[in-house]
Amino acid sequence: MAFLNEHFLKLKAGYLFPEIARRVKAFADANPEAATRIIRCGIGDVTEPLPAAALKAMHQALHEMGKRESFHGYGPEQGYEWLRHAIAEHDFRARGLEVAEDEIFVSDGSKCDCGNILDILGAGNRIAITDPVYPVYVDTNVMAGHTGEADASGAYAGLVYLPCTEANGFVPEPPAEHVDVIYLCFPNNPTGAVATRAQLSAWVEYAREHQALILFDAAYEAYISDPALPRSIYEIPGARECAIEFRSFSKNGGFTGTRCAFIVVPKTVLATIPSDPRPAGHPERRRPSAAVEGPGATERTATHPLHPLWARRHTTKFNGVSYIVQRGAEALYTDEGKAQVAALIAHYMGNSAILREAARRVGWRVYGGENAPYIWVSTPAGTTSWEMFDRMLGEANVVVTPGSGFGAMGEGWFRISAFNSRANAEEVARRIAAIAW
Amino acid sequence: MAFLNEHFLKLKAGYLFPEIARRVKAFADANPEAATRIIRCGIGDVTEPLPAAALKAMHQALHEMGKRESFHGYGPEQGYEWLRHAIAEHDFRARGLEVAEDEIFVSDGSKCDCGNILDILGAGNRIAITDPVYPVYVDTNVMAGHTGEADASGAYAGLVYLPCTEANGFVPEPPAEHVDVIYLCFPNNPTGAVATRAQLSAWVEYAREHQALILFDAAYEAYISDPALPRSIYEIPGARECAIEFRSFSKNGGFTGTRCAFIVVPKTVLATIPSDPRPAGHPERRRPSAAVEGPGATERTATHPLHPLWARRHTTKFNGVSYIVQRGAEALYTDEGKAQVAALIAHYMGNSAILREAARRVGWRVYGGENAPYIWVSTPAGTTSWEMFDRMLGEANVVVTPGSGFGAMGEGWFRISAFNSRANAEEVARRIAAIAW
Repeated sequence: MAFLNEHFLKLKAGYLFPEIARRVKAFADANPEAATRIIRCGIGDVTEPLPAAALKAMHQALHEMGKRESFHGYGPEQGYEWLRHAIAEHDFRARGLEVAEDEIFVSDGSKCDCGNILDILGAGNRIAITDPVYPVYVDTNVMAGHTGEADASGAYAGLVYLPCTEANGFVPEPPAEHVDVIYLCFPNNPTGAVATRAQLSAWVEYAREHQALILFDAAYEAYISDPALPRSIYEIPGARECAIEFRSFSKNGGFTGTRCAFIVVPKTVLATIPSDPRPAGHPERRRPSAAVEGPGATERTATHPLHPLWARRHTTKFNGVSYIVQRGAEALYTDEGKAQVAALIAHYMGNSAILREAARRVGWRVYGGENAPYIWVSTPAGTTSWEMFDRMLGEANVVVTPGSGFGAMGEGWFRISAFNSRANAEEVARRIAAIAW
Repeated sequence: MAFLNEHFLKLKAGYLFPEIARRVKAFADANPEAATRIIRCGIGDVTEPLPAAALKAMHQALHEMGKRESFHGYGPEQGYEWLRHAIAEHDFRARGLEVAEDEIFVSDGSKCDCGNILDILGAGNRIAITDPVYPVYVDTNVMAGHTGEADASGAYAGLVYLPCTEANGFVPEPPAEHVDVIYLCFPNNPTGAVATRAQLSAWVEYAREHQALILFDAAYEAYISDPALPRSIYEIPGARECAIEFRSFSKNGGFTGTRCAFIVVPKTVLATIPSDPRPAGHPERRRPSAAVEGPGATERTATHPLHPLWARRHTTKFNGVSYIVQRGAEALYTDEGKAQVAALIAHYMGNSAILREAARRVGWRVYGGENAPYIWVSTPAGTTSWEMFDRMLGEANVVVTPGSGFGAMGEGWFRISAFNSRANAEEVARRIAAIAW
């Protein structure tokens, strides 16, 4: 009988958001009247229409797909050159950052990229994540067999958890111990914290000292308005030697249902071949620095750039993003598109200000939401995150995300998402104010 | 320093189609005049416009995305229920086959699915592939560490190669030895062979006897016109216990640049947990039949359905296909859409007849192309596949695919794709006839 990947059986529970959906559905089924009042501030999903520039470009692309002369079949797996050029130009070179077109790989989502990046990393890495954390980083490592079993708190053996607390402003310092791979996400999901230039510099310094790899998730960079805060890891000198950056069109262009993202893999990021357990003289023993024959074959050296591995992974296991969608993404970089994205960000950040103020007024401790679309809020004393989730749903008919769903250190906190209509944000603020917490 | 996945370093050469693209570009750069005459019958990429029904549905979907009331953010990772319903109803239940909506997982491509399926399979499986074969099956197994090194012929240690030859009509019988996982693709890429009901039944019987898993790639099923030939593995009794099927909208709806596919994972397909090498009493030793706590957690038993593992993989590492694209795919199942797809198939199969006839007239041995869009042709005596590729490119200015790119048994063959305009197919036929081979 075929063997399954037993590491999947270590996964503790359903992915956070399906579990939230299950509870919301159970509540709605049991309370059909309240169900009509439910406002969702849970999952970080945009609510406003696509920017007009993107819509126009996609209608145009559809017209092209309807004529033989302008039809597009398979495109380059890495993304069309014109989209990668727009990305390199506007997101990086316009900000003085060095990123080449062929270091950019267009994909259908950051969630996919975050999981798929593990394909090119070997076993035996010591992996650090923040706590709380976006669950995908953890679950994909469990699936890949990079962890042991979970303990009662849900923490997996083998992972290094970096606590994010009020005391450190939810931005952890590099650990005293050695790690090989570090996941960082700023602006942070779920806490809304943003690392300063000094804080990110400390991480890059650590990574270079330990020859570690930083996986930098910048999906929310568009929400940074403070010009002193770095929007890309590549603003930190030395990051091109140690960091891969994840970007998305989901939260700037509102592409959560349209699907487009990209990652940057600098050619200067190196990794190493695990030490070979086979004895000297073994016929299959690895020979460092020996070249493998054949066109396009990767050369074997003790250290190796990750770029050709990712290029091979991406072209072998992926077939490119829809032409129509890539044209939509490209349009976000036009002057018209940029103005429309800025308006979307301003809209959501307006919601954030309203929700932050409402939460603060009832006496909760409130973080994030200033350069990020997420507000991180303490639960009333003695209330767990899931109890708070249930109270918010049952009493305010508002869906939030329980902090404990992001890790043990999230217990006692919940996340409010600013992705909503203005009317809904104002209504949520009124409901929070009306309840005796 | 971070460890890389050293299995990538076993990959022999660039993926076949990038290598073809490289040679075509080199030829075109060196021969600018001939370059204008190049006709591509290499990569299996459609050339005709999208069906009007799909275009209309996608324009409509774009209009919805432009209004707050009808905007769509994140959809279900598995695909919208209305698309999965249309698939289950038209592709399966209308043909008397039992497939439930929640056994269908919509994705952005069969190439992705073929690679990603390995995420849920463990190490230690004995894996069989046909030779020649779609290179993605092989390369993704190499990346996953399921093989040893390649030998001089490009064959990887650990894989079981099933020769497809003129003698067996390019449909191999099940092997005498035991294997755990088998890749089958019918209508076949690259040979165009189609397994009969009796041949597929023998495979299902083998799989049930050996408790093996069949990964059945049916991406080209729409090209089957002979009603006696099975279009789905599930037409064979017992297949729901041993087979996962891959389907695509690329080659029926012409979605190669639009991106949509799906797989069927019946809940009745089981796999087993690898035997635990840890001694009895070891604290981490696996306990068969013990349930893991937590909502949605998968239960641990010695055998286990693959469906919940794939569901977890798909929801954790993928975020759904573009809403716009899913609406386009759904429209292919309308009466209008079906008629337009049938016209597309008829168009390409008309090309196939022209190309088959031309190849036969010059005395080549010709297979496939009757219920498949690929024609499998012998090279002139003493000519290798790549030599024939170079001759076709240099003398006829026609791009074909060298058979050896699909495996050692493909040497001495080349593949002509019927995906083209009628005018191009006729021109290729004329050029083949005009050359003294």
